[in-house]
Amino acid sequence: MERIGHRALRDRVMSADEAAALIRPGDTVGMSGFTGSGYPKAIPPALAARIDAAHAAGEAFRIKLWTGASTGPELDGALSRADAVEYRLPYNSDPVGREKINRGEIDYLDMHLSHVAPMVWEGFFGKLDVAVIEVTGIKEDGSLIPATSVGNNKTWIECADKVILEVNAWHDMRLEGMHDIYYGTALPPNRVPIPMTHADDRIGQTTFRCDPAKVAGIVLTDLPDRNTPFTPIDDGSRAIAGLIVDFLEHEVRMGRMGEGLLPLQSGVGNVANAVLDGLRKSRFEGMRAYTEVLQDGMLDLLDSGKLLSCSTTALSLSPEGAKRFWAGLDDYRDKVILRTTEISNHPEVIRRLGVISMNGMIEADIYGNINSTLVMGSRIMNGIGGSGDFARNAYLSFFVSPSTAKGGKISTIVPQASHVDHITQDVQVIVTEQGLADLRGLSPKKRAEAIIAKCAHPDYRDGLQDYYDRARAGAYGLQTPQLPSESLSWHQRFIETGDMRPG
Amino acid sequence: MERIGHRALRDRVMSADEAAALIRPGDTVGMSGFTGSGYPKAIPPALAARIDAAHAAGEAFRIKLWTGASTGPELDGALSRADAVEYRLPYNSDPVGREKINRGEIDYLDMHLSHVAPMVWEGFFGKLDVAVIEVTGIKEDGSLIPATSVGNNKTWIECADKVILEVNAWHDMRLEGMHDIYYGTALPPNRVPIPMTHADDRIGQTTFRCDPAKVAGIVLTDLPDRNTPFTPIDDGSRAIAGLIVDFLEHEVRMGRMGEGLLPLQSGVGNVANAVLDGLRKSRFEGMRAYTEVLQDGMLDLLDSGKLLSCSTTALSLSPEGAKRFWAGLDDYRDKVILRTTEISNHPEVIRRLGVISMNGMIEADIYGNINSTLVMGSRIMNGIGGSGDFARNAYLSFFVSPSTAKGGKISTIVPQASHVDHITQDVQVIVTEQGLADLRGLSPKKRAEAIIAKCAHPDYRDGLQDYYDRARAGAYGLQTPQLPSESLSWHQRFIETGDMRPG
Repeated sequence: MERIGHRALRDRVMSADEAAALIRPGDTVGMSGFTGSGYPKAIPPALAARIDAAHAAGEAFRIKLWTGASTGPELDGALSRADAVEYRLPYNSDPVGREKINRGEIDYLDMHLSHVAPMVWEGFFGKLDVAVIEVTGIKEDGSLIPATSVGNNKTWIECADKVILEVNAWHDMRLEGMHDIYYGTALPPNRVPIPMTHADDRIGQTTFRCDPAKVAGIVLTDLPDRNTPFTPIDDGSRAIAGLIVDFLEHEVRMGRMGEGLLPLQSGVGNVANAVLDGLRKSRFEGMRAYTEVLQDGMLDLLDSGKLLSCSTTALSLSPEGAKRFWAGLDDYRDKVILRTTEISNHPEVIRRLGVISMNGMIEADIYGNINSTLVMGSRIMNGIGGSGDFARNAYLSFFVSPSTAKGGKISTIVPQASHVDHITQDVQVIVTEQGLADLRGLSPKKRAEAIIAKCAHPDYRDGLQDYYDRARAGAYGLQTPQLPSESLSWHQRFIETGDMRPG
Repeated sequence: MERIGHRALRDRVMSADEAAALIRPGDTVGMSGFTGSGYPKAIPPALAARIDAAHAAGEAFRIKLWTGASTGPELDGALSRADAVEYRLPYNSDPVGREKINRGEIDYLDMHLSHVAPMVWEGFFGKLDVAVIEVTGIKEDGSLIPATSVGNNKTWIECADKVILEVNAWHDMRLEGMHDIYYGTALPPNRVPIPMTHADDRIGQTTFRCDPAKVAGIVLTDLPDRNTPFTPIDDGSRAIAGLIVDFLEHEVRMGRMGEGLLPLQSGVGNVANAVLDGLRKSRFEGMRAYTEVLQDGMLDLLDSGKLLSCSTTALSLSPEGAKRFWAGLDDYRDKVILRTTEISNHPEVIRRLGVISMNGMIEADIYGNINSTLVMGSRIMNGIGGSGDFARNAYLSFFVSPSTAKGGKISTIVPQASHVDHITQDVQVIVTEQGLADLRGLSPKKRAEAIIAKCAHPDYRDGLQDYYDRARAGAYGLQTPQLPSESLSWHQRFIETGDMRPG
């Protein structure tokens, strides 16, 4: 209760069940949460139980669910399992949610994360009924100390009719002061420049504004974030990291960057962690990060002294990483800045800073179009997230992946991407454990030659070269030679046989 | 000669042949020109003749050619015909150039126009040897009065080892003062906010800086821009325009825009002209444009008083439009602003202003992915131009086209786009003469239902619905159901039979 500084709001403390009862069938609910951090952990399970009971009684009860990005099993998992979600935006990585989406049971809108807050504010998605936001505490004036992610919380609190808070004592009170909540955004025609010129500039305030009259309920919790362990760095990831570090060293030698590089953006996952580890062992000094997630590799880089600061919208730590983060918080407080996603992912800022963007992929085609989201063109993995915000506006845009998946049954390099998230114009460097293709300035056919030679796995290289040679000989046009009768045949073969390789 | 105010530079006046002789085999040459305006008209034909002679003598002679965007027959046409172009960026609409590109004889890099100036400056494409720039005049201090397009001229002049100028007396000297050349851009980490908050803000100077010591030659000309006539507005284009105006009226009623709308961006072509005509006849008042081309329809809108100003990087007028423009120049001078492409197409400015973006397309698939460039996935039409800069950052992003092409043999709506320039996340509204699909907030399957029902031509609607129904029943995943064994079969059928319809 001492985390609720605003006296009158203490009267609104209630149980998770009571808070869940404030959400009505058909409501659009904006919840906090971004990559397993800072999502509400008590109300969603209570809501799921309530909806289970309604369904058992034959009543219809589903909600539209908006978040910052992915959340945890208590939120997306529990609500998906209860068939409680009719519509979901802008990102999901929960396995239960993914399965329901891919069965066609949840309407899922996979969005550029930078589009979410402005488009909701612009009224393009209808009214937001309820915001359910996890916070670290409530101040005397009713303003809110954010938790371990910021995401779209500012927008949810502003746009929702009513606000329900989870005050989570698991979050260290020393988080206060780390956040940078910018209230200078506006709807057109009233927008002005975002006053940021360095990745670690602070341009906002440390808390969310919140009208206490809108707070319909408060639930007290003490529950950990979903913190997913990372697997140890494998040889393939280490090879990718080595190729990237070598390439960056080359760019520094060419005078295209200084020793501190340019602000780093790194996606989530084991390859990304390996790259951060490679940077830690590199000779670069004085680096900064401007990214949307802070994962363990970033902590290591901060600890090494080579990374001066990290701007992010969320933490995304392993259980050990979380422990280290709390233990070192007095030091990290000055180096880590947690921003709203509308700023962490804003094209204006990303292009101005000249970010070095590194993101994973499901597949790349020989011309360098990237599929980040849909396996075989149809089955969603997670979502595009912020990769489009960063890749198109980056100084250098890398896409990285092992060259095969499923034990070699899937080639990451394919004749034609079965779905496109990043067009060839937004992709400057592709890296697999086989090699690095620097695509800057190359026309499509030169790109194809580089990608096949440098990035493809040997098991698939001849097949790609054969396809490309025949396409060059017989395509409808030779700017980007494709043979539509077979450009997706590798995907079809995988669907039929479970292996892209001919039997 | 009186257009050369800088006395010493008068000594560098030479013939086009002499100027062409300053360009060496293998040079990278940055020429002015954007949509048929402001491109050099004397040196390129002289260079083509010189290269023809070299080729006849068995000598190798080709150049790498960079421009703002498309040019005219004297430039892209003459040089392409002479097999003078080894490499071309960032855009081509010349028929001879297109044919050579599609035969694989010119390496063509089709780029986001906003990427060109920064990436050249960053050194990603190698050294620029020569700039060949058409101007209206040279001032006493050596600064240059731009012509009817700005494009990348500022960057070419800054980056090239030597500069050759064509001073074209066809351009009215009253152009001076209309241009806004912003010198505040920088390489990261030194970039700062672009100080623009309204479409018609002036933030730069009226002339190009140019070191007179770099000027290697000056050619005096009096030659018209390539000004292409528009065809009269047909019923299909009028229908599309009507649907867009109705939709915008709806948005104003919903309070999502004021009566002056938000700054308009409109691509080139007859459909775009029809939309501008529709806006002229609408009830909207106090509009502004923030676009990359000013075509006849914009002049009409300016004349009507409903459009207050037009920011652009180039004029793109019909011969009659050009006459009107010169005749009305005293009035247009205050309303038309000609900017560098790095500013006219800058994502920072486009997103801040909240532009209403309207671009043409070759095809859209049922999920709303757009192909703007490659017919049947292989054969280049023109290029992506600025459409990606605008669509992703727009307040509202429209893609428009008649629902069929080639007399009904090609459907604009297809099961899967044979190439993707604009991913579904960047496409909010699709319009054909059949109807308008408002895709905001819709998940992929809901998008498919809307696009098939609203936009497809009746000849193709059942086929699309049949494909979609079967994909929903049997795809590998149901987020974006596709059947890779047949999703490109319509394109294959067209390649084989010349008709997407089953025989």
